[in-house]
Amino acid sequence: MLDFVADVPLVDHHCHGVVTGNPQRERFERMLTEADTVSPLGTSLFDSLVGLAVRERCAPVLDLPKHAPAEDYLARRAELGAEEVNRRFLHRTGTTDFLLDGGFQPDELTGTAEFARLAGARAHDVVRLEQVAEDVVRAGTTASRFAADFGVELEKRTKHAIAVKSIAAYRVGLELSGERPDAVEVVDAAGRWLGRVGAGLGLRLADEVLHRHLVWAGIDLGLPVQFHVGYGDSDVDLHRCDPLLLTGFLRATRETGVPILLLHNYPFHRNAAYLAQVFEHVFVDTGLITHNAGFRAPAILAETLELVPFGKLLFSTDAFGLAELYHLGTTLFRQGLSGFLQSALEADALSEVDAQRLVRLAGHENATRIYRLEPR
Amino acid sequence: MLDFVADVPLVDHHCHGVVTGNPQRERFERMLTEADTVSPLGTSLFDSLVGLAVRERCAPVLDLPKHAPAEDYLARRAELGAEEVNRRFLHRTGTTDFLLDGGFQPDELTGTAEFARLAGARAHDVVRLEQVAEDVVRAGTTASRFAADFGVELEKRTKHAIAVKSIAAYRVGLELSGERPDAVEVVDAAGRWLGRVGAGLGLRLADEVLHRHLVWAGIDLGLPVQFHVGYGDSDVDLHRCDPLLLTGFLRATRETGVPILLLHNYPFHRNAAYLAQVFEHVFVDTGLITHNAGFRAPAILAETLELVPFGKLLFSTDAFGLAELYHLGTTLFRQGLSGFLQSALEADALSEVDAQRLVRLAGHENATRIYRLEPR
Amino acid sequence: MLDFVADVPLVDHHCHGVVTGNPQRERFERMLTEADTVSPLGTSLFDSLVGLAVRERCAPVLDLPKHAPAEDYLARRAELGAEEVNRRFLHRTGTTDFLLDGGFQPDELTGTAEFARLAGARAHDVVRLEQVAEDVVRAGTTASRFAADFGVELEKRTKHAIAVKSIAAYRVGLELSGERPDAVEVVDAAGRWLGRVGAGLGLRLADEVLHRHLVWAGIDLGLPVQFHVGYGDSDVDLHRCDPLLLTGFLRATRETGVPILLLHNYPFHRNAAYLAQVFEHVFVDTGLITHNAGFRAPAILAETLELVPFGKLLFSTDAFGLAELYHLGTTLFRQGLSGFLQSALEADALSEVDAQRLVRLAGHENATRIYRLEPR
Repeated sequence: MLDFVADVPLVDHHCHGVVTGNPQRERFERMLTEADTVSPLGTSLFDSLVGLAVRERCAPVLDLPKHAPAEDYLARRAELGAEEVNRRFLHRTGTTDFLLDGGFQPDELTGTAEFARLAGARAHDVVRLEQVAEDVVRAGTTASRFAADFGVELEKRTKHAIAVKSIAAYRVGLELSGERPDAVEVVDAAGRWLGRVGAGLGLRLADEVLHRHLVWAGIDLGLPVQFHVGYGDSDVDLHRCDPLLLTGFLRATRETGVPILLLHNYPFHRNAAYLAQVFEHVFVDTGLITHNAGFRAPAILAETLELVPFGKLLFSTDAFGLAELYHLGTTLFRQGLSGFLQSALEADALSEVDAQRLVRLAGHENATRIYRLEPR
Repeated sequence: MLDFVADVPLVDHHCHGVVTGNPQRERFERMLTEADTVSPLGTSLFDSLVGLAVRERCAPVLDLPKHAPAEDYLARRAELGAEEVNRRFLHRTGTTDFLLDGGFQPDELTGTAEFARLAGARAHDVVRLEQVAEDVVRAGTTASRFAADFGVELEKRTKHAIAVKSIAAYRVGLELSGERPDAVEVVDAAGRWLGRVGAGLGLRLADEVLHRHLVWAGIDLGLPVQFHVGYGDSDVDLHRCDPLLLTGFLRATRETGVPILLLHNYPFHRNAAYLAQVFEHVFVDTGLITHNAGFRAPAILAETLELVPFGKLLFSTDAFGLAELYHLGTTLFRQGLSGFLQSALEADALSEVDAQRLVRLAGHENATRIYRLEPR
Repeated sequence: MLDFVADVPLVDHHCHGVVTGNPQRERFERMLTEADTVSPLGTSLFDSLVGLAVRERCAPVLDLPKHAPAEDYLARRAELGAEEVNRRFLHRTGTTDFLLDGGFQPDELTGTAEFARLAGARAHDVVRLEQVAEDVVRAGTTASRFAADFGVELEKRTKHAIAVKSIAAYRVGLELSGERPDAVEVVDAAGRWLGRVGAGLGLRLADEVLHRHLVWAGIDLGLPVQFHVGYGDSDVDLHRCDPLLLTGFLRATRETGVPILLLHNYPFHRNAAYLAQVFEHVFVDTGLITHNAGFRAPAILAETLELVPFGKLLFSTDAFGLAELYHLGTTLFRQGLSGFLQSALEADALSEVDAQRLVRLAGHENATRIYRLEPR
């Protein structure tokens, strides 16, 4: 690997907390990929690229030989204990700043402060918009008061946060209108939602108008907006999560100057890279696919780099729960970037001085600029 | 090529019969690709990757030098005669079991028993659901009797079959609803169909409700369901054949535990691989694109392998008519798998023991498990 | 690079004029990619693959060292002057024939004759259908007279043209119906359009019926029809520009025998290649993405070549304004073709005689045949 890629400090601009306990084999397998169940029909999820990557790249961190069998790996993991395992993997990332979305399964994961301590790094909060809205409804509101109540709550929760995040992709897909919803539309939509909640249909928000309203509320606070895009678990309608569906929304928001960050994007990463080229406020990463594709992650990063300007590419792991995933996402991102630049250097397609500058941009400078991180 | 890939016995889980005659040049070109016509506007279809692959990889099997001109190739083919040509190519595949869909142009191709004899291998029947339904209508039925008549006929025809197949992709696309159609809906849809048939509009089934009913009937019999997905001839509306459109249907069927097999998938192979990761009952192959992409087939297989667990990948040629296509599909699949694993081995991303195990899974163990093939 | 690729004469079947002035840095950056603005949020567009390619491949043409900084490059460009810069880049392409679409920003670019002089090559006119229609409305027409007026004007303007072009992709997307619109539909649509124009809503044509009518008018003249497909600036709804949306239209036009040329196609280039395989009158290129993807252009060409027969692939730069883009498009196309064939030769997947023949097809023979260019 190129020295200056191996050593560049990273900002992981989107990830989650780690589990503090020691997952058994089935739970470990489930957390390893986006599959939500393990089935004898399909054999073990260790037999996928991410599983092979754990055995290749994580086993040595736990003092095992490369390619140690899954059973041995999990036994050694249990022996060392979660605290030590988490510390080893997180310390090894070379990440100075983690941006944590704490909005999914918060009870099972470390919070931001605990994470910072484990990782020996700075950790920052990303506020999940839909979680705030659902908490507001849970606490009690009315259709006409919803917008105001949500606004107050969002301002409170984002006081120390550096970004917001929308999971509209998981609820209604990404075909958000280019229009900002007006007050009447929001009251109507909130009324429909509260009606469903009152009828016992659950709290889960899934309403195009309201997701859009939430995002605009984040934009009004001047906070960068992260969007889940593309690849996720079986709960997502992936064909509704092509980032191109956001085109109208991106046209409508470009004048605000607020950065929009498209996360993951696979298998639509080329589409996302296109958006990052043509819209000045759009940024992309390859997030979640990086550790999932293991050995193939560099190929996906190379496809993404066809169109995205280097000033628009960010790094994230989207690691969730398993400390291994922070390590894998980081090392595979470095490997992909290094491989890409090495081929370019071999083809004399850029100079080494440029290569070093581009690595700093993608590794941390873009994130530092966009999230206005304080210099370390 | 890695020894253990070159030697692994294969189960070709989706293919068709071979032609018993000797096709002339124009017919040969037409059968070579998915183009349904040869035109002076576009010159010869031999000048595509599959055409080059025939001249590279098939010519030596007929005792010609590599890259022999198309004319020489076809002359030699005629000289040897169809029986000998078919025998040479089929024997060379190293395939122990062929699963044959005999539902398309059955009059021009060998049946299952004849195929088994030519190939010196086992051959099994896959029943095309739409063909059964159309035969039931041809034989005479009514709207209210259709479901029962179809059920009886399907049970009869699948007595010795090991899977069913749907070509809904070719007729209505893959956006099948997640709901199982109820009896009334089926009667109504059958009525509409019979009305069109009665009005002389042809027997061809194309009705979302009925395709869905057919598939559920297959599931009720506990038979694995194959779906044509993606790449096909000009009769397909390819933008309606993205496997992601099946998401709702896959959610609805996962609890049955019946395997769903997504065939071909190109250019949506990454989408299909995603589905195979997140749904425990979904399996994929790269089928038809393998021989068509010739020299590039390994690159497509590598993209597919980004997300699909090795326990979910199957092998098929989707060869139809020309014996060359069984040979090409097989050798290019082996080459792709070998190339992928070789790069992984060179990068030390997996051990050789693992590589051998993964090859057995994809080569025949997955198919044996899913289709419950008897051990040989 | 393979000799016979480096030396093959090219027909650039789709490009635009060059600017005659000397663009300052901001304008240069804007013309370099499809971004329509440069923003401090995203840093410099020179930090993208096309920017690196300019510094790698264009700097030496202006007597600078490879990888010269952007500032130095632009200073040297200004020093040499636009006429000399344009001459150097255009002469170096090895292109014998340029097909120019002069329909976008004609006031800022050279016309066809001036371009031919600068390039020392033949230049031919491609008539942009929508521009003709808008000119007809600007000159004054009525709903009932529109079709006739347009027909007369189109015939006049195409007298010396060799193709027409549709930018329906930019206006309504590519989901054009498979039906030829009848006279009444055209009158109605023209009436709606004239109504909007009369209401001060601007002259811009965006009506599915009328775009379709324009294309059929081009077909009636027997002129090859070019379609903008896929990648473009932020004005395009890229998700409406998948070439597969043209499937019905292609079925409806195949019997005319008039060639349909799908331009650019990225990120849908595999879809376009599929259409070129299965429809005898469809042809593709990778146009605009070639220079934009710089160092990665060969990978995209390789994906396109999976399905497109070599008799159906054309070359274009889609260069617009900056002389650098003709040079980059040309040299990267040659590099991609050479790299592809070199790997094939190394794998012994084709013979050198075949490789040479395929290069002539894609380089100029296909274009010569389709556009009926006179031999040189």
